[in-house]
Amino acid sequence: MQKDTLFATLETAVTAGDKQSARATLELAHPADIAEAICEFTAQQAVHYLSLLSLPDHAVLFGYLTPHAQAEIAREMSRNDLAALFSQMEADERADLFNRLSEEDQHTLLPGLAQAEREDVRRLASYPEETAGALMTSDYATLRGHWPVRKALKKLRLEAPDKETIYQTYVIDANRHLVGTLSLRELILANPDRLVEELMRTEVVHTQVDEDQEVVAKKIRHYDLLALPVLDAEDRLVGIVTYDDAMDAAVEEATEDAQKSASVAKLDAPMNQVTGWELYRKRVFWLVLLVFGSLLSGAGIAYFEDTIAKYVALVFFMPLLVGSGGNAGSQSAALMVRALATGEVAMKDWAKVLGRECLVAGALGLTMAVAVFALGWFRGGVEIAWVVAFAMVSVVMAGSLIGLCLPFILSRVKLDPATASGPLVTTIVDATGVLIYFGFATTILGL
Amino acid sequence: MQKDTLFATLETAVTAGDKQSARATLELAHPADIAEAICEFTAQQAVHYLSLLSLPDHAVLFGYLTPHAQAEIAREMSRNDLAALFSQMEADERADLFNRLSEEDQHTLLPGLAQAEREDVRRLASYPEETAGALMTSDYATLRGHWPVRKALKKLRLEAPDKETIYQTYVIDANRHLVGTLSLRELILANPDRLVEELMRTEVVHTQVDEDQEVVAKKIRHYDLLALPVLDAEDRLVGIVTYDDAMDAAVEEATEDAQKSASVAKLDAPMNQVTGWELYRKRVFWLVLLVFGSLLSGAGIAYFEDTIAKYVALVFFMPLLVGSGGNAGSQSAALMVRALATGEVAMKDWAKVLGRECLVAGALGLTMAVAVFALGWFRGGVEIAWVVAFAMVSVVMAGSLIGLCLPFILSRVKLDPATASGPLVTTIVDATGVLIYFGFATTILGL
Repeated sequence: MQKDTLFATLETAVTAGDKQSARATLELAHPADIAEAICEFTAQQAVHYLSLLSLPDHAVLFGYLTPHAQAEIAREMSRNDLAALFSQMEADERADLFNRLSEEDQHTLLPGLAQAEREDVRRLASYPEETAGALMTSDYATLRGHWPVRKALKKLRLEAPDKETIYQTYVIDANRHLVGTLSLRELILANPDRLVEELMRTEVVHTQVDEDQEVVAKKIRHYDLLALPVLDAEDRLVGIVTYDDAMDAAVEEATEDAQKSASVAKLDAPMNQVTGWELYRKRVFWLVLLVFGSLLSGAGIAYFEDTIAKYVALVFFMPLLVGSGGNAGSQSAALMVRALATGEVAMKDWAKVLGRECLVAGALGLTMAVAVFALGWFRGGVEIAWVVAFAMVSVVMAGSLIGLCLPFILSRVKLDPATASGPLVTTIVDATGVLIYFGFATTILGL
Repeated sequence: MQKDTLFATLETAVTAGDKQSARATLELAHPADIAEAICEFTAQQAVHYLSLLSLPDHAVLFGYLTPHAQAEIAREMSRNDLAALFSQMEADERADLFNRLSEEDQHTLLPGLAQAEREDVRRLASYPEETAGALMTSDYATLRGHWPVRKALKKLRLEAPDKETIYQTYVIDANRHLVGTLSLRELILANPDRLVEELMRTEVVHTQVDEDQEVVAKKIRHYDLLALPVLDAEDRLVGIVTYDDAMDAAVEEATEDAQKSASVAKLDAPMNQVTGWELYRKRVFWLVLLVFGSLLSGAGIAYFEDTIAKYVALVFFMPLLVGSGGNAGSQSAALMVRALATGEVAMKDWAKVLGRECLVAGALGLTMAVAVFALGWFRGGVEIAWVVAFAMVSVVMAGSLIGLCLPFILSRVKLDPATASGPLVTTIVDATGVLIYFGFATTILGL
């Protein structure tokens, strides 16, 4: 169904308070699409629509909303409705929502849950954001090694409705230590009388509960996993991260890197929901900081004021030279930041990468020097032409090397290499470029 | 096992030509890790190691290699070995490899396959890169609506070893039209005597064979799918794209966008394998093109040469002003490009986004103007201070709006919005900034 039609249908149902037509939309469209349409409603309208649905439908739909929208809508719901919804949600989504509620709401919600669920929420909600612990769910299927396949399948059938996945199962011992893994595919192909421990794979790819979500997503992608088991400090199985949550995390990380690459701090909401005030706050820090960087370029210019006053024509080439250096630097930085993020290049490769970069940057600088030499001759004579050409090779090489090294250096001092953004590199290279250019000019023109 | 240890173990096995220890590594490490270690070998060494394994093990391992490495290693293999391997590979990976082989190799490989497989390779290999067709596999499980669950499960058990997934099945009619979908979870929970058509969901999220891989990955993520069915122009089911391939495609697209964001054309190989020559080629085009952009800034400076000659102090603030405009523009462009790529913002939202941007950019400009006013006063007197402050507000606003609008304009004329890269925006904003700054200066200083 078209998004606009869907929105109109939902709006009619809400206005009329019509339970039947509200529920009918669930047959017509995928819950992910309905959730998206609901995001266009005000929170009150959304609460109204959700109240027309049965509780299980309500919970499914709620799960497809963005965390941001979930929290907004939850704030508008009555305590009783929220408590009922809360008990029906999936374990990982429930914990995420819990973390986004006010302390007051949190305190009124917990008593409504059973003891075990309460502890589960507290535990899952306790892990820091962007870690395996925050991403994982406790709704996974476990088996025991001494069970026959027949018993394992029976248990999976019983538990299927409550588990996030039954396609990959985890074999644990009496102390919840992870001893193996088995897929449902392998189980249904196996002789029902064989034992789980005879069939399971014992080399299980896993992660620790405090691992960064970027690493989690990379592991799931690298090993083509449906889910990645998560262990605590005592190596006990405490949860799994499923591929769909890992995919969301990977996209979130790419967005964060794309924003950092332009010196914007991480936004707390998607671009269609973020407020102007937040955008201002996330941008102003770096803009002001970079002003001080630009002052270095200014200082460089001030230092060479005599040279400039004598040859004002030199200023004509300044944007060209420092711009090209900045552009080459941005290219190198972006290539390195992304290669470090995807794991294509590791810290240990840096010498090899540096060698190649010197050659590439040299070739790029020479190409550009040839182009500007002609231009320099035409506008300022042969001397200016040589100044501009020499400066171009040097500035492009300096820019490329700065752009290449900065992500490595940041990574080395345990900062996010993505901070080596285009604007930061450009600002540093600008100042370097000014010094190189006017330095050459002063020397060659004998000023 | 540690990567270095694994590499050493493999190397020993290869040097000794020891089949037993070569196979033993398969027990010790995940094939994905072995494949990664193999990439550090020369192609000849890799072929040697692979030849020590049984054909099925060989095929599994080969599947984990990057497409680039697959093609390199295939080139070193004997025709017979390659043909044998080829017949054992997964359908989608086989077609990808086929596309990367020389025409000569292609011609010698095809006769070795059965008629049906030959047609399958030809068909899968015929779809353009980065489309659903190129990403999909033909190894999927289909059911018929009139079958009882019992029969469906029996068929899945039989086919399980050959299918990429049996967890999501697709129900087709006599003409291969897609009529429904059913998960293995639903099947094993159902009464064995019920019919597939009574249980299946008939609203199936699907895609067309020529759809862009970015859209495919977005759909799989949006609907949390294990696999997305692909239909041809006559709406017949021709393949499925699985979540793991979609995740790879999403990361590939993010990498491409990150590179474009710094004016680098799409690389054909990962950063650790790309040659210096390719890096040069992919970077030089934009660098040279942007030189002509920078000439506009130079021309602006030339136009105001008299102003500059009278107030050389003005040059001091130039990097600061044009730099800030460029930085603000890069921020806006990166935010918009990413929001368009993830679908957080659509073309229709552009008026709303523009309104917010005007406020944010105005606030940012004012903040920065306050900072530089003091500086201007200190260095050049109150008149220069006013020039610099006014110019700052205007340049930051102009930069932000250019950065915001460029991705929308590119998207409108059917170009990739990611081309609105930092360097391109910076170059355009630089020229604009020069005109604004010296324009203000000439007017206010009454020159």
